[in-house]
Amino acid sequence: MGQPLRYGVIGFGYWGPNLVRAVNGADASVVRIVCERDPKRRALAEKLYPGIRAVADPEEVMRDSDIDVVAIATPVSTHFPLAREALLQGKHVFVEKPLASSSAESAELLRLAGEQGRQIFVDHTFVYTGAVRKLAELARSDHLGRILYYDSVRVNLGLFQSDVNVIWDLVVHDLAILEQIMPEAPIAVSAVASNPLDYGPESIAYVSVHYPREVVAHIHASWLAPVKVRQTLIGGTKRMVVYNDLEPTEKIKIYDRGVEVVTDPAEAARLKVGYRAGDILSPLVDQTEALAVAAKHANECFLEDRPPITDAKVGHRVVTVLEAAARSAREGGSRVKLEWE
Amino acid sequence: MGQPLRYGVIGFGYWGPNLVRAVNGADASVVRIVCERDPKRRALAEKLYPGIRAVADPEEVMRDSDIDVVAIATPVSTHFPLAREALLQGKHVFVEKPLASSSAESAELLRLAGEQGRQIFVDHTFVYTGAVRKLAELARSDHLGRILYYDSVRVNLGLFQSDVNVIWDLVVHDLAILEQIMPEAPIAVSAVASNPLDYGPESIAYVSVHYPREVVAHIHASWLAPVKVRQTLIGGTKRMVVYNDLEPTEKIKIYDRGVEVVTDPAEAARLKVGYRAGDILSPLVDQTEALAVAAKHANECFLEDRPPITDAKVGHRVVTVLEAAARSAREGGSRVKLEWE
Amino acid sequence: MGQPLRYGVIGFGYWGPNLVRAVNGADASVVRIVCERDPKRRALAEKLYPGIRAVADPEEVMRDSDIDVVAIATPVSTHFPLAREALLQGKHVFVEKPLASSSAESAELLRLAGEQGRQIFVDHTFVYTGAVRKLAELARSDHLGRILYYDSVRVNLGLFQSDVNVIWDLVVHDLAILEQIMPEAPIAVSAVASNPLDYGPESIAYVSVHYPREVVAHIHASWLAPVKVRQTLIGGTKRMVVYNDLEPTEKIKIYDRGVEVVTDPAEAARLKVGYRAGDILSPLVDQTEALAVAAKHANECFLEDRPPITDAKVGHRVVTVLEAAARSAREGGSRVKLEWE
Amino acid sequence: MGQPLRYGVIGFGYWGPNLVRAVNGADASVVRIVCERDPKRRALAEKLYPGIRAVADPEEVMRDSDIDVVAIATPVSTHFPLAREALLQGKHVFVEKPLASSSAESAELLRLAGEQGRQIFVDHTFVYTGAVRKLAELARSDHLGRILYYDSVRVNLGLFQSDVNVIWDLVVHDLAILEQIMPEAPIAVSAVASNPLDYGPESIAYVSVHYPREVVAHIHASWLAPVKVRQTLIGGTKRMVVYNDLEPTEKIKIYDRGVEVVTDPAEAARLKVGYRAGDILSPLVDQTEALAVAAKHANECFLEDRPPITDAKVGHRVVTVLEAAARSAREGGSRVKLEWE
Repeated sequence: MGQPLRYGVIGFGYWGPNLVRAVNGADASVVRIVCERDPKRRALAEKLYPGIRAVADPEEVMRDSDIDVVAIATPVSTHFPLAREALLQGKHVFVEKPLASSSAESAELLRLAGEQGRQIFVDHTFVYTGAVRKLAELARSDHLGRILYYDSVRVNLGLFQSDVNVIWDLVVHDLAILEQIMPEAPIAVSAVASNPLDYGPESIAYVSVHYPREVVAHIHASWLAPVKVRQTLIGGTKRMVVYNDLEPTEKIKIYDRGVEVVTDPAEAARLKVGYRAGDILSPLVDQTEALAVAAKHANECFLEDRPPITDAKVGHRVVTVLEAAARSAREGGSRVKLEWE
Repeated sequence: MGQPLRYGVIGFGYWGPNLVRAVNGADASVVRIVCERDPKRRALAEKLYPGIRAVADPEEVMRDSDIDVVAIATPVSTHFPLAREALLQGKHVFVEKPLASSSAESAELLRLAGEQGRQIFVDHTFVYTGAVRKLAELARSDHLGRILYYDSVRVNLGLFQSDVNVIWDLVVHDLAILEQIMPEAPIAVSAVASNPLDYGPESIAYVSVHYPREVVAHIHASWLAPVKVRQTLIGGTKRMVVYNDLEPTEKIKIYDRGVEVVTDPAEAARLKVGYRAGDILSPLVDQTEALAVAAKHANECFLEDRPPITDAKVGHRVVTVLEAAARSAREGGSRVKLEWE
Repeated sequence: MGQPLRYGVIGFGYWGPNLVRAVNGADASVVRIVCERDPKRRALAEKLYPGIRAVADPEEVMRDSDIDVVAIATPVSTHFPLAREALLQGKHVFVEKPLASSSAESAELLRLAGEQGRQIFVDHTFVYTGAVRKLAELARSDHLGRILYYDSVRVNLGLFQSDVNVIWDLVVHDLAILEQIMPEAPIAVSAVASNPLDYGPESIAYVSVHYPREVVAHIHASWLAPVKVRQTLIGGTKRMVVYNDLEPTEKIKIYDRGVEVVTDPAEAARLKVGYRAGDILSPLVDQTEALAVAAKHANECFLEDRPPITDAKVGHRVVTVLEAAARSAREGGSRVKLEWE
Repeated sequence: MGQPLRYGVIGFGYWGPNLVRAVNGADASVVRIVCERDPKRRALAEKLYPGIRAVADPEEVMRDSDIDVVAIATPVSTHFPLAREALLQGKHVFVEKPLASSSAESAELLRLAGEQGRQIFVDHTFVYTGAVRKLAELARSDHLGRILYYDSVRVNLGLFQSDVNVIWDLVVHDLAILEQIMPEAPIAVSAVASNPLDYGPESIAYVSVHYPREVVAHIHASWLAPVKVRQTLIGGTKRMVVYNDLEPTEKIKIYDRGVEVVTDPAEAARLKVGYRAGDILSPLVDQTEALAVAAKHANECFLEDRPPITDAKVGHRVVTVLEAAARSAREGGSRVKLEWE
């Protein structure tokens, strides 16, 4: 192996330290600079990582010709200008999800990355968990048959965020997962969001992402639930899956039962009584930390100059659907069409 | 106690036998006639209940001056003509849910019952379970504070029905429960329904019932889920509830945690980490069979000439919301306003 | 098929009605006489089953040459005299578990059945559930490898029985199941039982059944637990099983992980962290009512004159172990050896 | 607050680093020396904690007059000589559980600590979890009434240890917990242990600890279970508790149902059917890290010269019961009497 990729990390708040740890933990990369405005956080970075230079001005990262990758772990509103500048300086970009705060911005980053011949890795970390990689494998291998629906509940008693609503905070995860498992792009989105506390942004949302052939992916997201739930049902014509991310050892269960159009009345009656009719398999799921898998994949893509599975195109689609969902919610839940080039 | 109420039961298919058992099991009532077209089912009724007369023509029930109550356990499309005739003959009516197949019909039945001075009992059986009665008690006693949301998942791998879609089959239960726990009438409804199998009526539905102050009750209903789920989250400003109808002993859990607008950052940080911050109480729930409770309540209301908690007014509101939900689903999910006199 | 087996059922208390229903429900059998001392219960039997003769004296059953099988559903202390008399009269015997109240009695019944050329079916109903039949199949097919242990928890908040202690009431089930899945006969038993309430018979018991090669089957039985638990762990050298009888759809889970003597330290460290390392399979389990399966099997064995899987030999072994367990408990838990001919 | 307590930590293997972190994290203490034979581990200690001196010889800790407390995180067989020497040098002792490898050793340490006027803190960490502290509070406050039984299952698929068997590895936790919740000392112990794999020490154990009035505490411990279980049932005459340490938010459930001697037959019949008859309360449990609570408590006891709740007396009793359990297991499960001064 040659020289490791040299990262400059911008933002050392909540997620930044995790990023530094993951980049340094990967074989092919090392963090050289951390950029952070808050002097206390900067001091912390220097204390924790004596060999790393801590700076206050992002320009010091951008202009440093020894930096190969700019990693961005700052608030969403700053993703666009920082990623844009990094690309213009010829760097690869590793950016926290979502890619940008509007589809106009994400489209511009997608265009610019192509023009500059650089890769953008969007850190949709959930996509790199063992469970979601297993789901993607099941969906793509036709093990489940044709996907009929996706239903996700992603709720908890959460901190109200002041800058984004629950759609941008939680639904974003499901949209990234859907990019890995649905064979086609969505054609429309509709959403109901509410703020019954009359404080801050919307805290409850129901988002329906529409695909061809009446397939709907639905996401229930909330910061107001008494219990934490992370459960997804995926129905295929051959098999169905329950994915419960909070289960320590049985995150994925595959039900060996597809849906058939039953015409024999005796069979129909049986179905009405029992609600399963086959084995249930809970496959072993890789437990490697998702961020470590993500960093490794990002490095490989940067070194081999090929698009990551969460590249700018995926990041742009996710932002576009988020934007459309928010618009549908504002407009009373009517369908907003999605058009892709 | 005087003479028992004399019931004529129309329909001896799936639910009819349960009805006969419940009416006979109640202290204040007895079944005198069973009306059923199918001669085999009629023979079965006579064999099981030697003292009961089994007839083929509903008119024999309607014209019998010894019958006080006509109970209707036939397909939904026949509820209206049968209930109407019973009222015109001066009988009380005990009718399976939903009351009728359109709001025009249910409105007419509501009007006619008033005119005739007779009671209609709509058998929304779920309302009479110990769990739902406990929920109603909690909601009305202000134990939960102001209700902020209601979220229900009611899914299983079910038989496709040919006459009704999943909204009329499953969502109807939640609408009846909402009538017991929400302090105000709904103001609009929106729904997404899909039929990804391209067979029969819609098998998956997401229905949002809108109340004043941005309160939303959402129901996810499906016949295509690999697992049976009957779980409802109810959030109040003081406490929150998880109601899991499949739990044998802990159907209701009350989380001693309302939602507050947190301004102190330290408190906020804590909330972000832990997702509960109080005791959880699972109250003892009465386990009497719901149908027995329903029959007892119906009898009391008929004898004392007062409206049941699931009277024609409630039945009419449920049908109206079902109808509006189906319309919203057809129209792409946009809000359909509800107006009440 | 020829003429059905004609049963005389002695005892129409708690379990008798179930027996009558099952025998009548089976194709190859019919109940002709019910014998019961209590005139009210006798009247009930006649009302429920107009074609059946109800008598007070067991002799009327024994002497009736039209009776092929005597079914015994009376208190344990009466099993021996009734079964003995039935055999002497040339009848087959269908007897509730346990076979008798002492090993001397069960040995005598075993001997007498052989002498008379008649079959004894001991109704260890649990053995005929779909779940236990699946366990037996797994154990016998070497799917689990060599069985290393069996651990069962069978507790609930139960009614204190006045005639038998918790060993005879609950542990009996596990002993019958063990007869189906263990390849060898037990060699010793030890037990701890306690009665901390100082009322009635022992309400808590821990019974260890010892097999060759240090294999132990342990059963925890209690009438004093706040929750109902019916969970069994079975470890084999190839795979391990969790059998939870209260699970509606996943009663059996097979863990694809045997135990190996790990010498590689890296592998050892991994095992210490994760506690599973393979797929989990929950096989479809037959949901036919156990008593119906039992009645069918009993009839086949009576008609074909072959021993049932819960024959007198099995019934005798179960009684012998129960007796030895009770003795160990009285003697402070020391091992009581078991010797078999 | 005065000067912090100065710790010397002996052993920097698996648990040592946690100890250093906890001692340094506590307000009233700081680690000055780490003693470790392995030069690599010593180098690690110096790298992680630049201010700490790392030495190879325990004598350097013992002789250092600036050290107030010697913390021992070495294999069990070395606890006695190290703790003895520390006491003789006038140090307080913080020692990993169990206190020593025999009751002769633990008795001598108990005696010596008294003689030297020094405290021994035995790190039975589980005792300092929020859940166990809540259990102790419930037991002592008479909220549960008189304790009738304690039943614990502590099993998983675990690494076989070469130096200790499963009793010393896992049962030790329950014995320490019992010291906190049982009002009286145990009077006898009996145990069954097995090694069906015929490799290393016993991997499965069933230990019964006997108390006055037929109260039994039973612990099932195993390294051979396919699933991890950490569940304890505690029955009192007033209420019963289920403590599930693997539950993220409902570790403790209190069942509002004691056991009564039921004489009314109607009541008895009801109990037979339902297996709970009261509310269930899951109290909020403090989630502070147990080791941090332990370190804080140890420091307070050292500074104020008072015995910790896990002092040498408790540590000695735990070792004595472990030793007796191992002896009972060797002797075929017969009762071994316990006598206390």
